Amino acid sequence: MKKHLDPVGLAALALLAVTGPALAQDAATAAPAPQYALASETAYIFNTLLFLIGGFLVMWMAAGFAMLEAGMVRSKNVSMQCLKNICLYSIAGLMFWITGYNLMYTGVDGGFIGTFGPYAFDAVGAGDEAAKEALLATGYSTASDWFFQMVFCATTASIVSGTLAERIKLWPFLIFTVVLTGFIYPIAASWQWGAGWLSAMGFSDFAGSTLVHSVGGWAALAGALVLGARAGKYGSDGRALALPGSSMPLATLGTFILWLGWFGFNGASQLAMGTIGDVTDVSRIFANTNMAAAAGVVVAVLLTQALYKKVDVTMALNGALAGLVSITAEPLQPTVWQAVLIGGVGGVIVVFTVPLLDRLKIDDVVGAIPVHLVAGIWGTLIVPLSNAETSYATQIIGIAAYGAFAFVGSMIVWLALKMTLGIRVSAEDEALGLDKTEVGVEAYPEFGQGSQRV
Amino acid sequence: MKKHLDPVGLAALALLAVTGPALAQDAATAAPAPQYALASETAYIFNTLLFLIGGFLVMWMAAGFAMLEAGMVRSKNVSMQCLKNICLYSIAGLMFWITGYNLMYTGVDGGFIGTFGPYAFDAVGAGDEAAKEALLATGYSTASDWFFQMVFCATTASIVSGTLAERIKLWPFLIFTVVLTGFIYPIAASWQWGAGWLSAMGFSDFAGSTLVHSVGGWAALAGALVLGARAGKYGSDGRALALPGSSMPLATLGTFILWLGWFGFNGASQLAMGTIGDVTDVSRIFANTNMAAAAGVVVAVLLTQALYKKVDVTMALNGALAGLVSITAEPLQPTVWQAVLIGGVGGVIVVFTVPLLDRLKIDDVVGAIPVHLVAGIWGTLIVPLSNAETSYATQIIGIAAYGAFAFVGSMIVWLALKMTLGIRVSAEDEALGLDKTEVGVEAYPEFGQGSQRV
Amino acid sequence: MKKHLDPVGLAALALLAVTGPALAQDAATAAPAPQYALASETAYIFNTLLFLIGGFLVMWMAAGFAMLEAGMVRSKNVSMQCLKNICLYSIAGLMFWITGYNLMYTGVDGGFIGTFGPYAFDAVGAGDEAAKEALLATGYSTASDWFFQMVFCATTASIVSGTLAERIKLWPFLIFTVVLTGFIYPIAASWQWGAGWLSAMGFSDFAGSTLVHSVGGWAALAGALVLGARAGKYGSDGRALALPGSSMPLATLGTFILWLGWFGFNGASQLAMGTIGDVTDVSRIFANTNMAAAAGVVVAVLLTQALYKKVDVTMALNGALAGLVSITAEPLQPTVWQAVLIGGVGGVIVVFTVPLLDRLKIDDVVGAIPVHLVAGIWGTLIVPLSNAETSYATQIIGIAAYGAFAFVGSMIVWLALKMTLGIRVSAEDEALGLDKTEVGVEAYPEFGQGSQRV
Repeated sequence: MKKHLDPVGLAALALLAVTGPALAQDAATAAPAPQYALASETAYIFNTLLFLIGGFLVMWMAAGFAMLEAGMVRSKNVSMQCLKNICLYSIAGLMFWITGYNLMYTGVDGGFIGTFGPYAFDAVGAGDEAAKEALLATGYSTASDWFFQMVFCATTASIVSGTLAERIKLWPFLIFTVVLTGFIYPIAASWQWGAGWLSAMGFSDFAGSTLVHSVGGWAALAGALVLGARAGKYGSDGRALALPGSSMPLATLGTFILWLGWFGFNGASQLAMGTIGDVTDVSRIFANTNMAAAAGVVVAVLLTQALYKKVDVTMALNGALAGLVSITAEPLQPTVWQAVLIGGVGGVIVVFTVPLLDRLKIDDVVGAIPVHLVAGIWGTLIVPLSNAETSYATQIIGIAAYGAFAFVGSMIVWLALKMTLGIRVSAEDEALGLDKTEVGVEAYPEFGQGSQRV
Repeated sequence: MKKHLDPVGLAALALLAVTGPALAQDAATAAPAPQYALASETAYIFNTLLFLIGGFLVMWMAAGFAMLEAGMVRSKNVSMQCLKNICLYSIAGLMFWITGYNLMYTGVDGGFIGTFGPYAFDAVGAGDEAAKEALLATGYSTASDWFFQMVFCATTASIVSGTLAERIKLWPFLIFTVVLTGFIYPIAASWQWGAGWLSAMGFSDFAGSTLVHSVGGWAALAGALVLGARAGKYGSDGRALALPGSSMPLATLGTFILWLGWFGFNGASQLAMGTIGDVTDVSRIFANTNMAAAAGVVVAVLLTQALYKKVDVTMALNGALAGLVSITAEPLQPTVWQAVLIGGVGGVIVVFTVPLLDRLKIDDVVGAIPVHLVAGIWGTLIVPLSNAETSYATQIIGIAAYGAFAFVGSMIVWLALKMTLGIRVSAEDEALGLDKTEVGVEAYPEFGQGSQRV
Repeated sequence: MKKHLDPVGLAALALLAVTGPALAQDAATAAPAPQYALASETAYIFNTLLFLIGGFLVMWMAAGFAMLEAGMVRSKNVSMQCLKNICLYSIAGLMFWITGYNLMYTGVDGGFIGTFGPYAFDAVGAGDEAAKEALLATGYSTASDWFFQMVFCATTASIVSGTLAERIKLWPFLIFTVVLTGFIYPIAASWQWGAGWLSAMGFSDFAGSTLVHSVGGWAALAGALVLGARAGKYGSDGRALALPGSSMPLATLGTFILWLGWFGFNGASQLAMGTIGDVTDVSRIFANTNMAAAAGVVVAVLLTQALYKKVDVTMALNGALAGLVSITAEPLQPTVWQAVLIGGVGGVIVVFTVPLLDRLKIDDVVGAIPVHLVAGIWGTLIVPLSNAETSYATQIIGIAAYGAFAFVGSMIVWLALKMTLGIRVSAEDEALGLDKTEVGVEAYPEFGQGSQRV
């Protein structure tokens, strides 16, 4: 294969164009008839391109979670967090091919689950003419769709990683990731995006406030309950101690990465941009998504200033994320005012839910439960405000169904892991830090002091 | 909404295609007439996509400024810098909707200002047929344009943030950001990009060397003068002391992010890619933009080696940015040689202007004034070298008008803030570091030594 | 130039559309004939857009290498690594214009080298009608192609930078970069992608396992041999000592950046997306690329756990990169199973080659030789597994030819530099760290301890 388009390769254009039929032109000019682009093929390319761009933006969110979590844990556990994040993204990629995609999409048909087995991509060159016709009828390349849906699956696992940081063993976490990305998430997602029973009921979750963020949040909550809090997090008097994260710039970088990736997360969930209506909607989604995040930041910052007389940068970051999660269930229909409201409430949720969890002694290292679970519920609940085709009752049914399945399913897996392999490192290992005991590589060997102070 | 395109959804394609009329084909074949893509709709999608891609690339520059500044300040002020950057991006998003867009674009008509009031996005699905016709006539989705223009507005605020680091209070800075992004920048930009009086005069600034970078630079300069230098920056003998930044890799990361984002900044300022001419121009802009940045680096590195016998990495980074700012006023018309010259002079500017500012005791923490203001003036001034439709006289008028408005306008706001809220933290707070006193969260609690050494 | 599309500018659409000829419609309707998009122009825009998107993604890999290397060297050499990376990307940009592109592409014609001289971009607005016709026949904007190919050239230089870290002088490294990016890489690449002798023989390297990664790896290996190991790397008993990198989160960030960029590296090497076949292939490449990387991670993690009872995070990161390099020679033809196999073997290679190099006392600071050279050979060798048009014999000939040319050519340059300027810093400077002696700016002045410990 040459790195320059072969002039001969241009013959392929004949595929795009059909020969202009003999038009009733002035025969005297005898100009060759122009070749026009086929509408179905042009739309197919635009739709596929949307999945590819959206896909690489959401893939980039894996790095965002990694940086956010690396910044929010203590330096003695940073390598472990990096390792967990690159592993979980890899596992999600494999599992969403081995079982995930077909469990989620194939033959769900109003039911609760798809079929088992790996997923096959389109043939090279899109195959023969019949295969091409089938693809044109579908409207996009199935491999591009697989890629786009896979990165959503990976996001679910990323959410769990942060909550359980600084005390979980590596391998049980990775095994849980196998189950979450290969089974729990795909089955749950099949109910709605696979045209399962909730979709038939009229439940609505445009880009995954519930399907992705709350499911990840429920799995994280179950894990946090089974795992328990970090040593030293809650004093003997029951008050929560701050165990400050090792690097605020990395946490900030992670948040900006997530914000960027969210344009793909929500925007490409329009699933098409081959018409003026679709690409205009994608634009509207970009704008609303940004508005909600901005409102989440501003509200969180104003509230923390009012409540604590200082502005905690982690609250600003989580305000952005909560705004983003909140708008994800319906980023298209809201007016700008509504988007600001929806995201702003996300900011309120973060400011009040983070201390609430501490009062309940649920130790969530990065604040993933407030951001992804609670704001995800809020975002899903408020869809009917802007989307007349939905109802609060159905939204509540969907939220409850996902909560029950994801929480109970995760709890069973966590308990099984606890009873077999064990999921928590020893107290000595926790004090030394997981980088030394599980990873064998310190994150900052020259200036980290993680091992000297707990 | 399902996560898979509905087969029914493909009916939407009818929008893109019009039924091929009954063509004079061999009636015997009776083949169905093919459906072709409408040129106006295809161009609309391409143009909108350019705004969306350009927009997310420029949005990413907000992270670039955050990392650059986090790396260039001392560790005791890093959380504050992170907080300021996520807040300013959020504020810019809200303000450019509440007042900015309409002040900049609506009804300027050769004048000095647009209209007041929030901006409304396109209807879902692009609205009814009449709305669609209007959009097709416009040539792009207005929400995509809003998004793209908003991130430019945010960039202006990012520039200010770096210069004033390590000594400004949080809230006065945020209030200034409200005024800058909601009023100063949009009004200034209306003169040119809103088809105001400078546009009518023939002034030219393709992607914002003056409108964005110099305006931000003037605002920063005014702030630096009102705020004064950091404690300890200028010794009793008047010589400048180095107060080295806390993390060169973060500063480098920030620069690479900005370089990447600049392809969107300049490339998408072509505003269209629906024709062979437009997309070819976007490509030329990409190449010239990269050339100017590369030349800025090489010149800055060679010069610092010649002058100081060592190569300061911060000079290399600022050389890249100065090259980028320099080419921004006209990234399309220059030949490659001209792009190299324009960017290379940017590198010269940085090497000589950074020490000059120190001689004037203007304390610019990250070098934003040399990079954005001085190189921005250079880039705007040199436009007529490659663009025959411009004149040096008009370019100077534009530069002077923007300088007067942005500097005086900003100065008034800074002075008003100084006289009311006060803009500078106390000497004690400055010594302790803003992370402790304003943010309450240290950036590197385990190995930062910011609080022990000033 | 105004920042809004001029309504008048829409006249440009006439370029895209040709007036619908007088069709045999019902004359009674008298509807104006619709304007269709020309197939050749639409394909041109899609192809050019693919180069631009792919190009900025691969450009971003320069930041990935910078972060990976900054994280893998000790803190006393981090600024130097940042400086080298921004310089090499800049030099590559200039050299690939001054000599590279034409050496690689112009008039190679089955031979060994192209022509000398700088490369000229397309005219503004794509030029006159004849120029436009020529561009349409080419199928993409030449400036977009230049940009895309340039970032590949820069990647080759990035690979060298990591291996030679912590002991090489700045200027000899930069001079080597001039030769590598302006001559060695372009000449080597001309043999295959410039339609030279290897292309004529039937050698196949889709996106550069050999042309980019192995060439960079050979250059790095030659440099490592000439330069020698870092002081203290190999003890008097011959055993390798760990000299742990300063920041695992930066190394992780770099790896995620590279992974993201690789979608551009491999995906846009399809060189076209204007047809259903091409864009479907790009999608398949995205999926296969991700699969191979994921398999590389999982295999490296499982193997290190089995061998060492701990999982080294750097092995996981290098597993991802080795998987990516392995699939790069043929990311399109493999089935998913084959992609997993190809990438998984990449993971095996890393785990066994890193200690092997240490046994040979070849000091490769970041593991670039295992990842880019050895996995690059593997990926190129295995192409015939999935691509029936290739043969193992020809693949071996190509691998050997590139090895001989790149290794010998690089060796000559390294030896010439050693004998003239010298390439290695003094033992004192190495102990102090290059940031102090060559750059004059410490990477972490407030908490780095680089200068106190060697």
